[in-house]
Amino acid sequence: MLGLRERGIYGSRTLDDIVSELQENTKQRGIGFLAIQSNSEGELVDAIQKSRDSVSFILLNAGAYSHSSIAIRDALLAVAIPFIELHVSNVYSREPFRHRSLLSDIAEGVIVGFGAFSYNLALDAAIQYLAGRESD
Amino acid sequence: MLGLRERGIYGSRTLDDIVSELQENTKQRGIGFLAIQSNSEGELVDAIQKSRDSVSFILLNAGAYSHSSIAIRDALLAVAIPFIELHVSNVYSREPFRHRSLLSDIAEGVIVGFGAFSYNLALDAAIQYLAGRESD
Amino acid sequence: MLGLRERGIYGSRTLDDIVSELQENTKQRGIGFLAIQSNSEGELVDAIQKSRDSVSFILLNAGAYSHSSIAIRDALLAVAIPFIELHVSNVYSREPFRHRSLLSDIAEGVIVGFGAFSYNLALDAAIQYLAGRESD
Amino acid sequence: MLGLRERGIYGSRTLDDIVSELQENTKQRGIGFLAIQSNSEGELVDAIQKSRDSVSFILLNAGAYSHSSIAIRDALLAVAIPFIELHVSNVYSREPFRHRSLLSDIAEGVIVGFGAFSYNLALDAAIQYLAGRESD
Amino acid sequence: MLGLRERGIYGSRTLDDIVSELQENTKQRGIGFLAIQSNSEGELVDAIQKSRDSVSFILLNAGAYSHSSIAIRDALLAVAIPFIELHVSNVYSREPFRHRSLLSDIAEGVIVGFGAFSYNLALDAAIQYLAGRESD
Amino acid sequence: MLGLRERGIYGSRTLDDIVSELQENTKQRGIGFLAIQSNSEGELVDAIQKSRDSVSFILLNAGAYSHSSIAIRDALLAVAIPFIELHVSNVYSREPFRHRSLLSDIAEGVIVGFGAFSYNLALDAAIQYLAGRESD
Amino acid sequence: MLGLRERGIYGSRTLDDIVSELQENTKQRGIGFLAIQSNSEGELVDAIQKSRDSVSFILLNAGAYSHSSIAIRDALLAVAIPFIELHVSNVYSREPFRHRSLLSDIAEGVIVGFGAFSYNLALDAAIQYLAGRESD
Amino acid sequence: MLGLRERGIYGSRTLDDIVSELQENTKQRGIGFLAIQSNSEGELVDAIQKSRDSVSFILLNAGAYSHSSIAIRDALLAVAIPFIELHVSNVYSREPFRHRSLLSDIAEGVIVGFGAFSYNLALDAAIQYLAGRESD
Amino acid sequence: MLGLRERGIYGSRTLDDIVSELQENTKQRGIGFLAIQSNSEGELVDAIQKSRDSVSFILLNAGAYSHSSIAIRDALLAVAIPFIELHVSNVYSREPFRHRSLLSDIAEGVIVGFGAFSYNLALDAAIQYLAGRESD
Amino acid sequence: MLGLRERGIYGSRTLDDIVSELQENTKQRGIGFLAIQSNSEGELVDAIQKSRDSVSFILLNAGAYSHSSIAIRDALLAVAIPFIELHVSNVYSREPFRHRSLLSDIAEGVIVGFGAFSYNLALDAAIQYLAGRESD
Amino acid sequence: MLGLRERGIYGSRTLDDIVSELQENTKQRGIGFLAIQSNSEGELVDAIQKSRDSVSFILLNAGAYSHSSIAIRDALLAVAIPFIELHVSNVYSREPFRHRSLLSDIAEGVIVGFGAFSYNLALDAAIQYLAGRESD
Amino acid sequence: MLGLRERGIYGSRTLDDIVSELQENTKQRGIGFLAIQSNSEGELVDAIQKSRDSVSFILLNAGAYSHSSIAIRDALLAVAIPFIELHVSNVYSREPFRHRSLLSDIAEGVIVGFGAFSYNLALDAAIQYLAGRESD
Repeated sequence: MLGLRERGIYGSRTLDDIVSELQENTKQRGIGFLAIQSNSEGELVDAIQKSRDSVSFILLNAGAYSHSSIAIRDALLAVAIPFIELHVSNVYSREPFRHRSLLSDIAEGVIVGFGAFSYNLALDAAIQYLAGRESD
Repeated sequence: MLGLRERGIYGSRTLDDIVSELQENTKQRGIGFLAIQSNSEGELVDAIQKSRDSVSFILLNAGAYSHSSIAIRDALLAVAIPFIELHVSNVYSREPFRHRSLLSDIAEGVIVGFGAFSYNLALDAAIQYLAGRESD
Repeated sequence: MLGLRERGIYGSRTLDDIVSELQENTKQRGIGFLAIQSNSEGELVDAIQKSRDSVSFILLNAGAYSHSSIAIRDALLAVAIPFIELHVSNVYSREPFRHRSLLSDIAEGVIVGFGAFSYNLALDAAIQYLAGRESD
Repeated sequence: MLGLRERGIYGSRTLDDIVSELQENTKQRGIGFLAIQSNSEGELVDAIQKSRDSVSFILLNAGAYSHSSIAIRDALLAVAIPFIELHVSNVYSREPFRHRSLLSDIAEGVIVGFGAFSYNLALDAAIQYLAGRESD
Repeated sequence: MLGLRERGIYGSRTLDDIVSELQENTKQRGIGFLAIQSNSEGELVDAIQKSRDSVSFILLNAGAYSHSSIAIRDALLAVAIPFIELHVSNVYSREPFRHRSLLSDIAEGVIVGFGAFSYNLALDAAIQYLAGRESD
Repeated sequence: MLGLRERGIYGSRTLDDIVSELQENTKQRGIGFLAIQSNSEGELVDAIQKSRDSVSFILLNAGAYSHSSIAIRDALLAVAIPFIELHVSNVYSREPFRHRSLLSDIAEGVIVGFGAFSYNLALDAAIQYLAGRESD
Repeated sequence: MLGLRERGIYGSRTLDDIVSELQENTKQRGIGFLAIQSNSEGELVDAIQKSRDSVSFILLNAGAYSHSSIAIRDALLAVAIPFIELHVSNVYSREPFRHRSLLSDIAEGVIVGFGAFSYNLALDAAIQYLAGRESD
Repeated sequence: MLGLRERGIYGSRTLDDIVSELQENTKQRGIGFLAIQSNSEGELVDAIQKSRDSVSFILLNAGAYSHSSIAIRDALLAVAIPFIELHVSNVYSREPFRHRSLLSDIAEGVIVGFGAFSYNLALDAAIQYLAGRESD
Repeated sequence: MLGLRERGIYGSRTLDDIVSELQENTKQRGIGFLAIQSNSEGELVDAIQKSRDSVSFILLNAGAYSHSSIAIRDALLAVAIPFIELHVSNVYSREPFRHRSLLSDIAEGVIVGFGAFSYNLALDAAIQYLAGRESD
Repeated sequence: MLGLRERGIYGSRTLDDIVSELQENTKQRGIGFLAIQSNSEGELVDAIQKSRDSVSFILLNAGAYSHSSIAIRDALLAVAIPFIELHVSNVYSREPFRHRSLLSDIAEGVIVGFGAFSYNLALDAAIQYLAGRESD
Repeated sequence: MLGLRERGIYGSRTLDDIVSELQENTKQRGIGFLAIQSNSEGELVDAIQKSRDSVSFILLNAGAYSHSSIAIRDALLAVAIPFIELHVSNVYSREPFRHRSLLSDIAEGVIVGFGAFSYNLALDAAIQYLAGRESD
Repeated sequence: MLGLRERGIYGSRTLDDIVSELQENTKQRGIGFLAIQSNSEGELVDAIQKSRDSVSFILLNAGAYSHSSIAIRDALLAVAIPFIELHVSNVYSREPFRHRSLLSDIAEGVIVGFGAFSYNLALDAAIQYLAGRESD
């Protein structure tokens, strides 16, 4: 149900923790969950393209690629799956080239700077979004 | 407990609804809540300055002033109260002068584009933040 | 019928003269007229928001705020009242930061540089606009 | 009495209508009127240069050349005839390269976005200007 | 004799101290003194406009508004009272948007970075300026 | 006690006058004074480097070099002597390349535009600074 | 059927050759062909305007005017005839002011750098385009 | 004979169709054809490097990487195989970051905006190019 | 022998004077002279193209077109006749858009600001240039 | 001991030579050596992340990715291994987009332009660096 | 009568030749001549300042300093001696940082690109200028 | 054999040490060595010009002048002696105006950030360079 990516700067244990927590969280709500990790822009593009028919929402932490990858933008435009852009750190208090994202304007929303809790907020927002669409 | 501001483009009823919901929400958790509304940059600066001793967290929707007001930034720097910057609409898919905020780099986090639900997410993040600080 | 603002650099007498003339002019044509003056961005935002249901056209001389106020732009977008942007002096022959307006692209039209007569031209254009809409 | 130019994007009938209306209008007020049309920057420069001794005011719709022609600016500076820059459409809501005019800062005033009525407003402003100068 | 404004980031006590000291200082020299405080751009504009006939010099600490307010610039241009721009902190060692002032080029002089002593220096400069003008 | 430099555009007599006045002024307060003049960037760098052990404060009018000399900045960073940047004329009302200084952000403070009196103000600020440091 | 323009830097013989070849080529396919040559921006605007009712596709080599002429853009927008922008040389390996075209974004497609063969490719693309529209 | 890449936004069937058509087309002309697909910048670099000795011309649709990949440029510079840059959509009518290509200035030519027919045009241009070189 | 153009801002008499003086001057030295005047970019392009075989040097005062015409640059590149760019007024002390010329880098030399005497200097430089080439 | 990457534009033989030479060189000094080659940004990120515990210094020739990859910067920031940025060619005499590196400011040092000898210099600098750290 | 400076890139013999020729030339016309050479910005500033009373015109080849020295500009503004800026090579066909001069806008005129003959042209222009002023 | 310059921010002892070490080092290899120190741009230009015939390689630490001196660039271009640009500190992690050098693109190579060891690396590179040239 979710495409996920984490920057390598967080130890694998922490990332596993987040994934476990999200899996727990989504299982309780009866939502499928799929975690994908990669340092490769191309593999992220592949994962987004493959999610076309099986995924209804993407929580996307594209890390550094948020600021440089037109290819990931193109993949998101192509699959047309609603997604939330999230960042663990506050990108606006870091280097200037992190202030611009190539993904924000086509996202449903953006969540920045709440550490690992950014994932929890994004999941809540996704559930709210999907509930809203169902009730239409 | 919270400084709040809403842009006038949302009918007063909607804003009242959000305020009511947040008051309900915070009352249940035993958190005080204070709503402030103004179209004046100066009044927002005043409200932030006055909150110095009585407020422990600010949910700030500074609307258009996010992109132009160094005075609000100065007030936030002066009171040194942690705050979340939130926007109801996705500012990144609007005019270029809305893509830069003068507040983001000094915020705890930024939440953009989830409609009225942005307030709910921000409140959750604030509660998480305050809980984390207490447990230190 | 009209929201109005004048920069303080014109003595109050001159501004009163213009207001009187416009009131005379509009009364003869059976048009209501309302003059508002303020140096405060917030009060101008308030005035625009309050005019939502009672005003059908705005002649707007936002003076210096034309070049810096996203909040006034937001108020105009929110009320969706057609308006004309007018300037008494030729802003294009003054400092570079006066060459860009944050209001022009959403105005019905722009009138610049004809001194107090800018108001007369704007009033004529408004009457023409309203007549055109009635005849649809 | 007036140099005039219309962009080709308006059918000749409409332009003829405007010219007729202006001729009617000026005849009633005892003002001579001369209409000139050209797609050539050079011919517009020629027309401005030739108007030096016989023309007391210019209503100038230089269309696309407003944004690119230093030559027309030079011609206007050379003949030193007061002129109004006018645009039929709202150039500020179109492509960025139409936001800058090479003529505005040396014009008596600028009128933008009122359709064909821009000519009527400009004519009124010109009459007002000439009346003002006579009474000095 | 003096229009005064202080940013809220300094506790009211400190500002009161400065005001007292300046009042003491000016009283000894037989100079009237008037302190005005506001967080509102509009109120500062009002204060400047009202000082037109009663004030011969302005010591202006416009804080954050120095970098964003064309309206304050317009008010100063309109009243044509000589003024000194002063800043308590060194704006040049802070964020880039504080490096540009919209007031400096029309000020008699600029004093930056000497803490509260900036007011004393500005007062001395004002006295020197007024003495020089009297002796002409 | 002071490194000093004056732009050649002021006749040597006036510069001598200022130097005399400052020498008088500093002698009365028991402060040593040293005047240095040069049109050479390299000699100014030399003078700053040589002042490392013997000078406790610099009043620096680097004139045109303020806007272009990274070498003078480096010398000031190397000797780490507190200094005030001063300008006799208002650099902000002159050519754009004079609006940026390569020295301001590392100065204790900046004084601009008070003619020869800029030196007096700078001297007062330096005395205040040194007094403050002694009392620590 | 086609408006055509060639930059003068190619000898008339070569241009004649291209025109002949295109005429041959189009005659065989039963397509009318019209060649126009001019060094004048105004004449090109005229030619485009006159082609409104008689031409169904334009192969446009506007040469240097591609990079500077808003007037040609306006003419193309006004007639709303589909067109291909073509360049004989590779404009992207030449001076920076040739990298931006004022026509590309409103063209059906762009062909750059194939020498005289650019015309053949453009003709094929035009035929393909017209065939596609007929079959709708 | 040809390196090929297609953006994932086109369904695999369409891409297969194009490949089939090109294979048919080249087979008839006695030209070998090799199709490569990848979302990975690195794999595209690999493919270009490996084609050094076996490929005489490249038709390159680098999609999003055209605007961001210096690595692909470097690979093309290293193998020195002539190539055509092609785009299926009109990149000039899309986001500004698609207006600049890092490949265009070193390409033989550029073809933009003709849909799948861009491949056909590019193939014709390649054949023409290779024919021209043989006849030298 | 010389292509010549004069901006219309100089009365025809003055231009005639210059032409006469140059004709006198060149006749004495046995050099043919041809004067061309036009306000049209296209006619100037035509004149340069036609001068290909009959002219050995061009004194070019392209006036406003120096700053905007890539077409004139292309014509000069095509005919490859050495030329001097000259301006009667000092373009560097006028508006910023006159500081850049599209012709200077391909000129033999540039002469700016000496009034009508610019033509005399340019003629001397041309004679020197042609003499130097003959002696090779 | 060393992470290594070489751009593909150098034949594998040359790269093997460098690797051999470095292996020889490091073996003699009792330093372990590990060579990694890849054209993929993701694989380079992987390699840097995996080197976290086993590598004490990195000689990094990131080629084209130096100028575009925030992901490699993030990996280097995460592992916090000291590294030298090296380039075989002089990037400053090539295209402007090679003048900026996203890695230089976090490197221990930068070596540019000495051909294959850049590796030898970098190795010497690394040995010096490690020796210095040991002796602390 | 003339301040003169030559860049070191021309062998001293050539510079001596030019100086000799100019001395010859000026002696014949009864004009005093003084040659100054220096690589030091400061010495050039000194020389300009010292020429205040004894020199009536300056031929200035400030070489590289034309593009970087505000100090030389200040010296020229201070002495208010008319001067011609000259360059031996065509600075507009060299690196971009040579396209802007800090001296051109305050010069009487500018002569660029005629080799050593630039001095002869400048001398002629100076003589013409001085003659013109005498005859007033 | 070597032109050398050190910024004054390093104590004379340290610089002497480096010079001694380099002299020792070069003496052992039979290479002459010459150390030059100056804070003056002009003296550095002089030193470079004088080294024309006697020096075969320059190790250049131009300090702050690397970023501002076109005159030093011109001197290096004129003598055409190969040189290495070196910096003791990592200029890329300092102020933005230190990120651009006016010398790098014409240097044989650039070495940045290795402290005093930068000189050793540069010397090795120079020896390698000279050896390579001899063996040709």
